[in-house]
Amino acid sequence: MPYAPSDPPVLTLTTGPVDAYPAVLRGLAAPVLYDYDPAFQATYERVCRKLGEIVKSETVPVLLQGEPVLALEAAAASAIGAKDVVLNLVAGVYAKGFEGWAARSGAEIVELAVPYDEVIDPAMVEAALKARPDVTVVALCHHDTPSGTINPVAEIGAIVARHGALFLVDAVSSFGGMPVDAASAHADIFVTGPNKCLGCPPALSIVGVSAKAWAKMKANPAAPRDSILSILDWEDAWRADRPFPFTPSVAEINGLEAAVDHFLAEGAERVFARHAATARACRAGIRAMGLELWAKDERFASPTATAVRTPDGVDEAALRAAVRARYGVVLSSGRGATLGRLTRIGHMGPTAQPIHAVTAVAAFGGTLAAFGRPVDVGAGVAAALASIDAG
Amino acid sequence: MPYAPSDPPVLTLTTGPVDAYPAVLRGLAAPVLYDYDPAFQATYERVCRKLGEIVKSETVPVLLQGEPVLALEAAAASAIGAKDVVLNLVAGVYAKGFEGWAARSGAEIVELAVPYDEVIDPAMVEAALKARPDVTVVALCHHDTPSGTINPVAEIGAIVARHGALFLVDAVSSFGGMPVDAASAHADIFVTGPNKCLGCPPALSIVGVSAKAWAKMKANPAAPRDSILSILDWEDAWRADRPFPFTPSVAEINGLEAAVDHFLAEGAERVFARHAATARACRAGIRAMGLELWAKDERFASPTATAVRTPDGVDEAALRAAVRARYGVVLSSGRGATLGRLTRIGHMGPTAQPIHAVTAVAAFGGTLAAFGRPVDVGAGVAAALASIDAG
Amino acid sequence: MPYAPSDPPVLTLTTGPVDAYPAVLRGLAAPVLYDYDPAFQATYERVCRKLGEIVKSETVPVLLQGEPVLALEAAAASAIGAKDVVLNLVAGVYAKGFEGWAARSGAEIVELAVPYDEVIDPAMVEAALKARPDVTVVALCHHDTPSGTINPVAEIGAIVARHGALFLVDAVSSFGGMPVDAASAHADIFVTGPNKCLGCPPALSIVGVSAKAWAKMKANPAAPRDSILSILDWEDAWRADRPFPFTPSVAEINGLEAAVDHFLAEGAERVFARHAATARACRAGIRAMGLELWAKDERFASPTATAVRTPDGVDEAALRAAVRARYGVVLSSGRGATLGRLTRIGHMGPTAQPIHAVTAVAAFGGTLAAFGRPVDVGAGVAAALASIDAG
Amino acid sequence: MPYAPSDPPVLTLTTGPVDAYPAVLRGLAAPVLYDYDPAFQATYERVCRKLGEIVKSETVPVLLQGEPVLALEAAAASAIGAKDVVLNLVAGVYAKGFEGWAARSGAEIVELAVPYDEVIDPAMVEAALKARPDVTVVALCHHDTPSGTINPVAEIGAIVARHGALFLVDAVSSFGGMPVDAASAHADIFVTGPNKCLGCPPALSIVGVSAKAWAKMKANPAAPRDSILSILDWEDAWRADRPFPFTPSVAEINGLEAAVDHFLAEGAERVFARHAATARACRAGIRAMGLELWAKDERFASPTATAVRTPDGVDEAALRAAVRARYGVVLSSGRGATLGRLTRIGHMGPTAQPIHAVTAVAAFGGTLAAFGRPVDVGAGVAAALASIDAG
Repeated sequence: MPYAPSDPPVLTLTTGPVDAYPAVLRGLAAPVLYDYDPAFQATYERVCRKLGEIVKSETVPVLLQGEPVLALEAAAASAIGAKDVVLNLVAGVYAKGFEGWAARSGAEIVELAVPYDEVIDPAMVEAALKARPDVTVVALCHHDTPSGTINPVAEIGAIVARHGALFLVDAVSSFGGMPVDAASAHADIFVTGPNKCLGCPPALSIVGVSAKAWAKMKANPAAPRDSILSILDWEDAWRADRPFPFTPSVAEINGLEAAVDHFLAEGAERVFARHAATARACRAGIRAMGLELWAKDERFASPTATAVRTPDGVDEAALRAAVRARYGVVLSSGRGATLGRLTRIGHMGPTAQPIHAVTAVAAFGGTLAAFGRPVDVGAGVAAALASIDAG
Repeated sequence: MPYAPSDPPVLTLTTGPVDAYPAVLRGLAAPVLYDYDPAFQATYERVCRKLGEIVKSETVPVLLQGEPVLALEAAAASAIGAKDVVLNLVAGVYAKGFEGWAARSGAEIVELAVPYDEVIDPAMVEAALKARPDVTVVALCHHDTPSGTINPVAEIGAIVARHGALFLVDAVSSFGGMPVDAASAHADIFVTGPNKCLGCPPALSIVGVSAKAWAKMKANPAAPRDSILSILDWEDAWRADRPFPFTPSVAEINGLEAAVDHFLAEGAERVFARHAATARACRAGIRAMGLELWAKDERFASPTATAVRTPDGVDEAALRAAVRARYGVVLSSGRGATLGRLTRIGHMGPTAQPIHAVTAVAAFGGTLAAFGRPVDVGAGVAAALASIDAG
Repeated sequence: MPYAPSDPPVLTLTTGPVDAYPAVLRGLAAPVLYDYDPAFQATYERVCRKLGEIVKSETVPVLLQGEPVLALEAAAASAIGAKDVVLNLVAGVYAKGFEGWAARSGAEIVELAVPYDEVIDPAMVEAALKARPDVTVVALCHHDTPSGTINPVAEIGAIVARHGALFLVDAVSSFGGMPVDAASAHADIFVTGPNKCLGCPPALSIVGVSAKAWAKMKANPAAPRDSILSILDWEDAWRADRPFPFTPSVAEINGLEAAVDHFLAEGAERVFARHAATARACRAGIRAMGLELWAKDERFASPTATAVRTPDGVDEAALRAAVRARYGVVLSSGRGATLGRLTRIGHMGPTAQPIHAVTAVAAFGGTLAAFGRPVDVGAGVAAALASIDAG
Repeated sequence: MPYAPSDPPVLTLTTGPVDAYPAVLRGLAAPVLYDYDPAFQATYERVCRKLGEIVKSETVPVLLQGEPVLALEAAAASAIGAKDVVLNLVAGVYAKGFEGWAARSGAEIVELAVPYDEVIDPAMVEAALKARPDVTVVALCHHDTPSGTINPVAEIGAIVARHGALFLVDAVSSFGGMPVDAASAHADIFVTGPNKCLGCPPALSIVGVSAKAWAKMKANPAAPRDSILSILDWEDAWRADRPFPFTPSVAEINGLEAAVDHFLAEGAERVFARHAATARACRAGIRAMGLELWAKDERFASPTATAVRTPDGVDEAALRAAVRARYGVVLSSGRGATLGRLTRIGHMGPTAQPIHAVTAVAAFGGTLAAFGRPVDVGAGVAAALASIDAG
């Protein structure tokens, strides 16, 4: 009774898009108001202010009307000028990819890279900034999702702050699932989105901006205006009495409010504990089956996604396809340099439930066993359960 | 018992965002699949193909992941190069606004403008192209929403086609509510969106592209790539076996499928008749109350929105606020040059029902009467009803 | 462009089922929990307790798992025994219909009836109880919906209370739309439902029960137990730690919670004012068109439904069908003795908005005019608007 | 990170209510139409006719407006008269419970009972009918859910048919999940509901009625009429041009249509295969952990629920509570005579997915292990996966 590609899956355990919380799905179905209806304008301001409690940016977060790649491209275009020197910290595919957007401004790019199964060492950043005191912007991808690794953003942020450069952080797939925010990261531009750990569909970006970053963008003559790529256009758009640069995505805003309310009602601490426990159980299960985490050191591994190194000789795409066909469980591939070399199990928002990690271990291990690999699924599941039981 | 600004309105009769069809709201609430789940990839292709039946573009329409201002900016950036000469046909605020995006390329802009209560005469286009045989791109806003007027796109399109220029049409707020499509408009780039007459929330653009337009964009070295502004990135993304340049807005795609299915089930002819009958009833009611349409000639008036000239001495913003406060009915203001000079009553998608025009006439007329204007609301409603009865 | 019977209507202005509030529709779509899941048990208790704030019954209201005809049949079967003498106050079709259920017990039925366009005079009740001091149960239909008339329940209740009989009140279509509750009505069994003015779909009953009524039901050997008709089975079922007699309608309970929250958030006073203003505007419009209310005295007319006497020679069914076909507006017929003699326009829950009364007047009047009746629709609409403006 | 009772569960794997299919939840949120709106009347008829394709009753199935206990009580009250002799086949709690309703009519009840972990042997029915040729009604519970066992309904039905008695079948929790219908069961009254394997919330009953059963009910002077307990009142109510006896549960009907469409689109064969595969995997896992099925013979075990015998010394309620607290997984207890002696894992509708059986095995086994029982969870999961792989 295999699941056909056209059959809906049973369980989506990807690194995003993830399924939305039921309350978010219902939020999306709320009546669509005119964007200038005062009731909607009040909603928009309320959502932004509530987000501010979680993002902890110096100013009320800006919503951009597209998923976070928009915000990353917009941040690069807005905050990086031709005279800037950008230190790009590269521990994975997404960080590397940011270089393309950063370079468009004509800025000089200085790269500090580590292998994609490691993370950036703060001491290296310290050294790099000493070597290049002219660095004006530092960019970091907090959770480089294609590797499932977490960089020490707070430590790096403190170093960047001392140096005085603008710190641009991509926290898209960690925010809302672990303790990270603009304040603790010392981030000047903190890019994230509701479509990962907040449990919304993809369609919006959230950008936390410091006063320093607003000033830098305003001083940048090349910063987009009258453009989908403009952050500046949206500076005051969250205020109920100010116009929108263009029509915001009303339904997605309604969904986002439901997500934020869900987060606040559950409480950050419990949300984060739920993500961490799920990832822990998943890693325990994976290792107990004799499989390797992608992260060279388990301490690098993200609480929001577990990347599993693909055993030699296994066709990763065929493996994932088989997991779906056999059990209806959907997992994520790697991207770019990690494509074909790892499989990712997401623990984000509604899927960050320890029992889902057990299910993922069973489905992934079961498929590898069916591929003829000497994988002890029973041991994997038992280890995952033991991890949950250990609390 | 006035409606407070924070109270939800009873009836949103704006020119967009409009409320969505109930089936679309439910579509938005469907489970969010992983974008690379084969079931979602099949959905995406299916939606694009069905849209192709309505858009009638030479190639399968492209979806951009933002409301249509994104598509207009992207079209200008992609299709207009530094060496182009653009004839911009300006009969309203939106057409005029396109100039800013068109000019970014460095192209020369030739403007052909008429007062904003008139429409472009095809003969003027013919003459303009004779005067400037070097024109390579012609841009037209079919329904310049801030004026509620409809330009003769098919006639103009035929002239442009004979001339050989690329024809770029903004049909955002007419498409889906009246007989207009890429084929009949001879459009090379046909920009529209689901958030007006198709009855979806704002968040996506639909772009119908001709083979000639694909070639021109590919030949343009400045055409955006690896960017939210890229159309080229999405050329084949509708195919189930091709990657997306970035994560599409899954929930909005689900909503869009519901909208397209709704349109196809009701049938284009009936959908268009419904819009036309609503606008006709609205205009009849407005005139019977002694009020003036904004359109200089009623034949210019759109079947998807009725713009009513603001009587001298009336504060248009206060008028609309009072319509909402008294009756819970939300109408649209003008924009830019028409702001404060007219009020717009939308007839789009779910609100394109003749009885809503009656309600709008009553609410609008009733408020003007309360403002001390000599408006005969009873005559207005009677005329609107008579228009419906006349079929 | 007439609406076919199979086309969805534009506006349902009936006396129930009415369309549900958008928040209720979304509530219905919440995940369906196991009824013995502690999270659902907590929801059930919470909903019943919140309802208690509105119903104001001596004990926490009981939910029966069927629309209110179930509760009426159950109340008769549970509270009326063979030795009872029931004074049935009949001012309409529904009150008359209750006799059938009451008589099944073998009790003697004493009827006090008035023409169906009048209401019960408390003095008549006083006299009837003097004449028959052996009356043990008095039954009243507060809002006899097929007539659209409201009986003076509080005054009658006070008389019944002094007499000492059990007072059984059907407040199905008035509760939630005007100030009526078990306490002010002196009701021992107060039957209502969420499917009228609370804006839910039909599927549940709400029963407020006094201590005296519980005692009487328990003392009745014929009171149903282990039956869908049992009220006794549900006495403590609202408590989270008690079992349900059978599976409650989980989704409807979820929808009901949304409705109760909506009511409490808007506030009873404002909800009632909204219903009253809508009915007032409707009556003003109807009379200004030269039509007659069904209620002999306008003071009898309900704030939740307006019954309009069918002009001589008009086929009422054809009239309503034409209102729907021409405008997409759905109205209610009479029932039983009032069938064919009146048309009802509902003002319940989400439709209790004054502007909907204006629309109803226009659609109803417009159709009568098209039927050749000398109806001045303009005057009707103007009068309805004037009523709204008068506050 | 245990789940509190008030936390929503992660996965509801009960024997009903089960969570609804996503499409059903969205169906519930459709606009609520007036029950006499022709569009709703058409929907009602369409739903009943489509159900007829699955129920395969002689006449179009009747919908009763309450969950199936209503239909069982109504069937007993309608079809069983004082002169009937009822052979009640008792293999479980629900069959035994039917006796109470059957006896109310005054009929003589002849019981044929087996232990609750066994099923009725057709030969015993044959013998019983020979012993009592005056039996006029035979009642069977196909899937006695509190035992998770399936009685051989087709064989028994053939015997009853030859005998000439009326055959009353409760197929509430098997219908839609395995091959059973009124025709193959030779059932005269086939009671089921949408709230189990069709994946709807509880609120409706479906009753398939033969011509013989209609005749018997009509001939029964005690058959309820003008009552929630009446089946006769609803005989023609499915026809779009006939009145409803009282207001049907509009939203639930909308949800039911989505469920029926889902069933028909997936196809009965595949739906049944999915249920069977899930139960098979579950049983394999349970046994591999050294646990016992409740069913004495695995061939008795239902494809829609797996009942697991509670190991000696284990507090079953505490066990289930711990499964929920540890993993967020909700299971069902026994009922009545089986309460405390078994735990049930449901495989119904949306939860009939083999991977959910794996998850259930892990959660159930993991909890037993934590209770100090020598349970090999790994072996259980491996066996469940192997069962799936074996197809």
